[in-house]
Amino acid sequence: MRILVIGGDGYLGWPTAMHFSAAGHEVAVFDSGVKRRWEARLGVRALAPIASLHDRVATWKAVSGRTIHMYVGDVGDRSDIAAALRAFAPDTLIHYGEQPSAPFSMIDADHAIETQANNVLGTLQLAFAMRDLTPDAHLIKLGTMGEYGTPNIDIEEGYLDIEHNGRRDRVAFPKNPGSFYHLSKVHDSNNLMLACRLWGLRVTDLNQGVVYGTDTDETARAPELATSFHYDGWFGTVINRFVAQATAGVPLTVYGEGGQRRAFLNIRDTLQCVGLAAANPAAAGEFRVFNQFTESFSVGEIADRVAAAGRALGLSVSRQTVPNPRVESAKHYYNPKNSALLALGLAPRRLTEDVLKDMLAWAARYARRIDPRVIQPTVDWRLGGGLAVADGARGFASAGSR
Amino acid sequence: MRILVIGGDGYLGWPTAMHFSAAGHEVAVFDSGVKRRWEARLGVRALAPIASLHDRVATWKAVSGRTIHMYVGDVGDRSDIAAALRAFAPDTLIHYGEQPSAPFSMIDADHAIETQANNVLGTLQLAFAMRDLTPDAHLIKLGTMGEYGTPNIDIEEGYLDIEHNGRRDRVAFPKNPGSFYHLSKVHDSNNLMLACRLWGLRVTDLNQGVVYGTDTDETARAPELATSFHYDGWFGTVINRFVAQATAGVPLTVYGEGGQRRAFLNIRDTLQCVGLAAANPAAAGEFRVFNQFTESFSVGEIADRVAAAGRALGLSVSRQTVPNPRVESAKHYYNPKNSALLALGLAPRRLTEDVLKDMLAWAARYARRIDPRVIQPTVDWRLGGGLAVADGARGFASAGSR
Repeated sequence: MRILVIGGDGYLGWPTAMHFSAAGHEVAVFDSGVKRRWEARLGVRALAPIASLHDRVATWKAVSGRTIHMYVGDVGDRSDIAAALRAFAPDTLIHYGEQPSAPFSMIDADHAIETQANNVLGTLQLAFAMRDLTPDAHLIKLGTMGEYGTPNIDIEEGYLDIEHNGRRDRVAFPKNPGSFYHLSKVHDSNNLMLACRLWGLRVTDLNQGVVYGTDTDETARAPELATSFHYDGWFGTVINRFVAQATAGVPLTVYGEGGQRRAFLNIRDTLQCVGLAAANPAAAGEFRVFNQFTESFSVGEIADRVAAAGRALGLSVSRQTVPNPRVESAKHYYNPKNSALLALGLAPRRLTEDVLKDMLAWAARYARRIDPRVIQPTVDWRLGGGLAVADGARGFASAGSR
Repeated sequence: MRILVIGGDGYLGWPTAMHFSAAGHEVAVFDSGVKRRWEARLGVRALAPIASLHDRVATWKAVSGRTIHMYVGDVGDRSDIAAALRAFAPDTLIHYGEQPSAPFSMIDADHAIETQANNVLGTLQLAFAMRDLTPDAHLIKLGTMGEYGTPNIDIEEGYLDIEHNGRRDRVAFPKNPGSFYHLSKVHDSNNLMLACRLWGLRVTDLNQGVVYGTDTDETARAPELATSFHYDGWFGTVINRFVAQATAGVPLTVYGEGGQRRAFLNIRDTLQCVGLAAANPAAAGEFRVFNQFTESFSVGEIADRVAAAGRALGLSVSRQTVPNPRVESAKHYYNPKNSALLALGLAPRRLTEDVLKDMLAWAARYARRIDPRVIQPTVDWRLGGGLAVADGARGFASAGSR
């Protein structure tokens, strides 16, 4: 396959690119570098030092002998994406090129708009470019399980068969997410569904659970190949954040009662799932939806597991309840389906104590880089607000400015 | 009430502003003038000459003795909308400020993106501004019945009670529209639903049918008060377009077999519906949805009715089948509900032969301004494309440019 990884500089994008390259495919990364600029704006950095994209590609060449092609461009810029599609002529596109933080999108109007502009308009630009330049290619688009919210019914994979007043139809599964970031992914899905219907594009929409994990077979091959593992309140997902907190000896911050239940998967299973999707492409005109996760846990259960693994390593791990900055149900029904990827052969890695111990051991190598000040949530879903982490940091329009 | 009409320079916005002003409310219009720039770009104009917004407001003052306040600004610009909310302090906002043409949104990536940026990001900016400046005000947001598409089940008003695998939930009615314009309205609805849930905003989302009509009690009071009636392929809705074609003696252009069924209402009923919504505001935190239409017809039935009314006036009216440039079902189930506004007291005006004769008589006054070249559809939903109406007109990225 000829695989273009959009957002190929990110936490998932870079490991994905190496994974396919290692398997013998022709791979190119496409990235604007905007995520690194957002990190600079927010005053956060990945736990392991991250090489430049140029150095990553060069190191990969040195250790594997294989070339990953590189396009520095913005998917929302017509000439950037057209140039890459013309030059590389991919048959498979994997699209991670989106602003990935819910709290970022809730700071204020500017950040909500920046998120939806980057994500929704960028993906729309990509859909048109594919129509015009690579109409037979397969687009694998990363969405999130958070798009569904927490309905009181089983969460099917993208579609729902309903009967209403004696008539039947198959409809897009109704979504009810909890942030403007999550909504950007819903808008993407709706736009792409139309693009498939109108133009016959092939799209697989992966509603991904919360990803955890520190490394993959390829990132572990050299320090310059490390992925962008975040533990901060902006880009750090809950398991990764708890691992860093346990490592730094600060209490695990559980939002509210911790009864919120979510779907999770290991970063290595992200690679496995995307690989299965790529090897089994959607049909022409098909908007195919997979729920991409392996297990579901409540936030409280995760805190318990991280604490247990930490204690097994001799760490002193405590737990702190902080008021939930988000608007979400404290306790709720949650039964999402994930049979499609299992049917394609997904072999789940479970969140075992050994996995958590490995993560803790990895994080311990970078313990002195953990800044406890950036872990606490600073954005209130009701009021917005921003960051005041470092003295003198740029202030955003905050709740107090109204 | 203190009513801010966003998009107050448009086909519906301007009559709405005068309607509430005539009824004794304090009214302000807010408009960026971008619709007039789009008209200039596309080479089309309203059938009746349209005064500047300044002259409209001055004329209204002269004929009614009443002041309509005016804010020239972009709803997507934080300082513009904040200035208007601070200065006018509305308790009711009626939001028509969106790019309203489906074909415009299907020209190419730039126009799809311009549509979703203007509509979705503008409405998102407005939601944040209301949260911070007028949190108790009632937002009446114009959506469209086209958001629903043509599902095989009855179309309820915004929500659907479903049972699935023995469990029940009430969900947003699944939408499946047919253009990036219609999708912009879906994205708006999804964003505003979250704003209500997070911030307690009061929103009424009006899924409006296709509006027809040439004038209202207030537009008829002076030529300078005329509304922006369009008959062209870009902004002209089907009944208005057929009326202009019958007037100009050119065949009515029916797309495909004409079996597409849609919901309609008279522009005077738009004013009535918006008045009912404003007088009965949504509760704090409520995202209320009304389907706003009075009748449904197939396109073929409408052609028959316009032809009959034209012949009764001595016009020679013929009919021409053109290939459907859109991707839509030729024949389909269509049973949308509209009981909420009827329960509030909506008294529908029907599309009678007398109503059509009045429209034809009005259009005849401007017959020499009808340009048959701008009526034919020029955008193919599958290929995009643009306009090549006037020789030397600016060309858009067309199907041939790929």
